[in-house]
Amino acid sequence: MRARVSIRLRPDVLDPQGKAIGQALVTLGFSSVNNVRQGKLIELDVEASDVGSAEQQVQAMCEKLLANPVIEDYDIEIIA
Amino acid sequence: MRARVSIRLRPDVLDPQGKAIGQALVTLGFSSVNNVRQGKLIELDVEASDVGSAEQQVQAMCEKLLANPVIEDYDIEIIA
Repeated sequence: MRARVSIRLRPDVLDPQGKAIGQALVTLGFSSVNNVRQGKLIELDVEASDVGSAEQQVQAMCEKLLANPVIEDYDIEIIA
Repeated sequence: MRARVSIRLRPDVLDPQGKAIGQALVTLGFSSVNNVRQGKLIELDVEASDVGSAEQQVQAMCEKLLANPVIEDYDIEIIA
Protein backbone atom coordinates (compact mmCIF):
# COMPACT_ATOMS: atom_id res chain seq x y z
CA MET A 1 0.00 0.00 0.00
CA ARG A 2 1.17 3.51 -0.77
CA ALA A 3 1.14 5.96 2.12
CA ARG A 4 1.58 9.71 2.11
CA VAL A 5 2.91 11.43 5.23
CA SER A 6 2.58 15.22 5.52
CA ILE A 7 4.88 16.67 8.15
CA ARG A 8 4.44 20.27 9.27
CA LEU A 9 6.09 22.40 11.90
CA ARG A 10 3.72 23.00 14.81
CA PRO A 11 2.00 26.39 14.50
CA ASP A 12 3.94 27.95 17.39
CA VAL A 13 7.35 26.94 15.98
CA LEU A 14 9.24 29.55 13.95
CA ASP A 15 9.73 28.63 10.30
CA PRO A 16 12.60 30.66 8.82
CA GLN A 17 12.50 28.73 5.55
CA GLY A 18 8.80 29.52 5.11
CA LYS A 19 9.51 33.16 5.91
CA ALA A 20 12.25 33.29 3.29
CA ILE A 21 9.92 31.81 0.68
CA GLY A 22 7.25 34.37 1.62
CA GLN A 23 9.69 37.26 1.25
CA ALA A 24 10.91 35.93 -2.10
CA LEU A 25 7.29 35.70 -3.33
CA VAL A 26 6.61 39.30 -2.27
CA THR A 27 9.80 40.41 -4.07
CA LEU A 28 8.54 38.63 -7.20
CA GLY A 29 5.33 40.67 -7.06
CA PHE A 30 2.99 38.31 -5.20
CA SER A 31 2.24 40.95 -2.60
CA SER A 32 -0.88 39.30 -1.19
CA VAL A 33 1.00 36.24 0.12
CA ASN A 34 1.11 35.68 3.83
CA ASN A 35 1.92 33.11 6.49
CA VAL A 36 4.03 30.73 4.38
CA ARG A 37 5.01 27.46 6.05
CA GLN A 38 7.23 24.78 4.57
CA GLY A 39 6.84 21.13 5.53
CA LYS A 40 7.86 17.74 4.23
CA LEU A 41 5.99 15.21 2.16
CA ILE A 42 7.12 11.59 2.34
CA GLU A 43 5.53 8.88 0.19
CA LEU A 44 6.35 5.21 0.62
CA ASP A 45 5.12 1.69 -0.08
CA VAL A 46 4.47 -0.56 2.87
CA GLU A 47 3.32 -4.17 2.90
CA ALA A 48 0.13 -4.58 4.89
CA SER A 49 -3.01 -6.67 4.69
CA ASP A 50 -5.38 -3.76 5.36
CA VAL A 51 -5.48 0.01 5.66
CA GLY A 52 -5.50 -0.01 9.48
CA SER A 53 -2.34 -2.04 9.75
CA ALA A 54 -0.62 0.10 7.09
CA GLU A 55 -1.52 3.24 9.04
CA GLN A 56 -0.24 1.70 12.25
CA GLN A 57 3.11 0.84 10.67
CA VAL A 58 3.49 4.30 9.15
CA GLN A 59 2.62 5.92 12.47
CA ALA A 60 5.39 3.92 14.14
CA MET A 61 7.79 5.11 11.41
CA CYS A 62 6.77 8.72 12.04
CA GLU A 63 7.40 8.40 15.76
CA LYS A 64 10.73 6.65 15.37
CA LEU A 65 12.24 8.49 12.42
CA LEU A 66 10.18 10.58 10.03
CA ALA A 67 8.88 13.35 12.29
CA ASN A 68 10.18 15.13 15.34
CA PRO A 69 7.11 15.13 17.59
CA VAL A 70 8.52 17.93 19.74
CA ILE A 71 8.25 20.47 16.95
CA GLU A 72 6.29 18.72 14.17
CA ASP A 73 2.79 17.40 13.54
CA TYR A 74 2.07 14.77 10.92
CA ASP A 75 -0.88 13.36 8.95
CA ILE A 76 -0.95 9.92 7.36
CA GLU A 77 -3.06 9.07 4.31
CA ILE A 78 -3.17 5.69 2.61
CA ILE A 79 -3.51 6.61 -1.05
CA ALA A 80 -3.47 3.26 -2.87
CA MET B 1 -7.56 31.68 1.17
CA ARG B 2 -5.16 29.02 2.36
CA ALA B 3 -3.44 26.96 -0.31
CA ARG B 4 -1.43 23.79 0.00
CA VAL B 5 1.19 22.99 -2.62
CA SER B 6 2.62 19.45 -2.77
CA ILE B 7 5.87 19.29 -4.72
CA ARG B 8 7.32 15.92 -5.72
CA LEU B 9 10.30 14.88 -7.78
CA ARG B 10 9.18 13.44 -11.12
CA PRO B 11 9.07 9.63 -11.01
CA ASP B 12 12.10 9.23 -13.27
CA VAL B 13 14.32 11.54 -11.19
CA LEU B 14 16.63 9.91 -8.63
CA ASP B 15 15.79 10.77 -5.02
CA PRO B 16 18.84 10.09 -2.82
CA GLN B 17 17.13 11.61 0.23
CA GLY B 18 14.16 9.27 -0.15
CA LYS B 19 16.55 6.36 -0.58
CA ALA B 20 18.40 7.28 2.63
CA ILE B 21 15.10 7.46 4.54
CA GLY B 22 14.12 4.05 3.14
CA GLN B 23 17.42 2.50 4.23
CA ALA B 24 17.11 4.03 7.70
CA LEU B 25 13.58 2.61 8.04
CA VAL B 26 14.80 -0.86 7.04
CA THR B 27 17.63 -0.57 9.60
CA LEU B 28 15.05 0.31 12.24
CA GLY B 29 13.16 -2.90 11.49
CA PHE B 30 10.54 -1.70 8.98
CA SER B 31 11.65 -4.26 6.44
CA SER B 32 8.54 -4.06 4.25
CA VAL B 33 9.15 -0.43 3.24
CA ASN B 34 9.89 0.33 -0.36
CA ASN B 35 10.07 3.13 -2.90
CA VAL B 36 10.36 6.08 -0.49
CA ARG B 37 10.19 9.55 -2.06
CA GLN B 38 10.59 12.84 -0.26
CA GLY B 39 8.91 15.99 -1.46
CA LYS B 40 8.01 19.41 -0.15
CA LEU B 41 4.80 20.76 1.28
CA ILE B 42 4.24 24.51 1.17
CA GLU B 43 1.19 26.15 2.73
CA LEU B 44 0.39 29.81 2.31
CA ASP B 45 -2.36 32.41 2.53
CA VAL B 46 -3.23 34.31 -0.63
CA GLU B 47 -5.80 37.05 -1.12
CA ALA B 48 -8.29 36.14 -3.81
CA SER B 49 -11.99 36.61 -4.46
CA ASP B 50 -12.60 33.00 -5.53
CA VAL B 51 -10.97 29.58 -5.63
CA GLY B 52 -10.11 29.81 -9.32
CA SER B 53 -8.19 33.03 -8.97
CA ALA B 54 -6.38 31.73 -5.87
CA GLU B 55 -5.33 28.61 -7.81
CA GLN B 56 -4.15 30.73 -10.70
CA GLN B 57 -1.98 32.88 -8.44
CA VAL B 58 -0.50 29.86 -6.68
CA GLN B 59 0.22 28.20 -10.01
CA ALA B 60 2.15 31.30 -11.11
CA MET B 61 4.13 31.13 -7.83
CA CYS B 62 4.96 27.48 -8.48
CA GLU B 63 6.22 28.23 -11.95
CA LYS B 64 8.26 31.24 -10.91
CA LEU B 65 9.71 30.08 -7.59
CA LEU B 66 8.27 27.17 -5.64
CA ALA B 67 8.85 24.24 -7.98
CA ASN B 68 11.48 23.37 -10.55
CA PRO B 69 9.33 22.17 -13.45
CA VAL B 70 12.27 20.37 -15.08
CA ILE B 71 12.50 17.81 -12.29
CA GLU B 72 9.41 18.38 -10.14
CA ASP B 73 5.63 18.01 -10.40
CA TYR B 74 3.25 19.92 -8.18
CA ASP B 75 -0.37 19.81 -7.01
CA ILE B 76 -2.32 22.77 -5.68
CA GLU B 77 -5.23 22.46 -3.25
CA ILE B 78 -7.21 25.35 -1.83
CA ILE B 79 -7.95 24.18 1.69
CA ALA B 80 -9.78 27.09 3.31
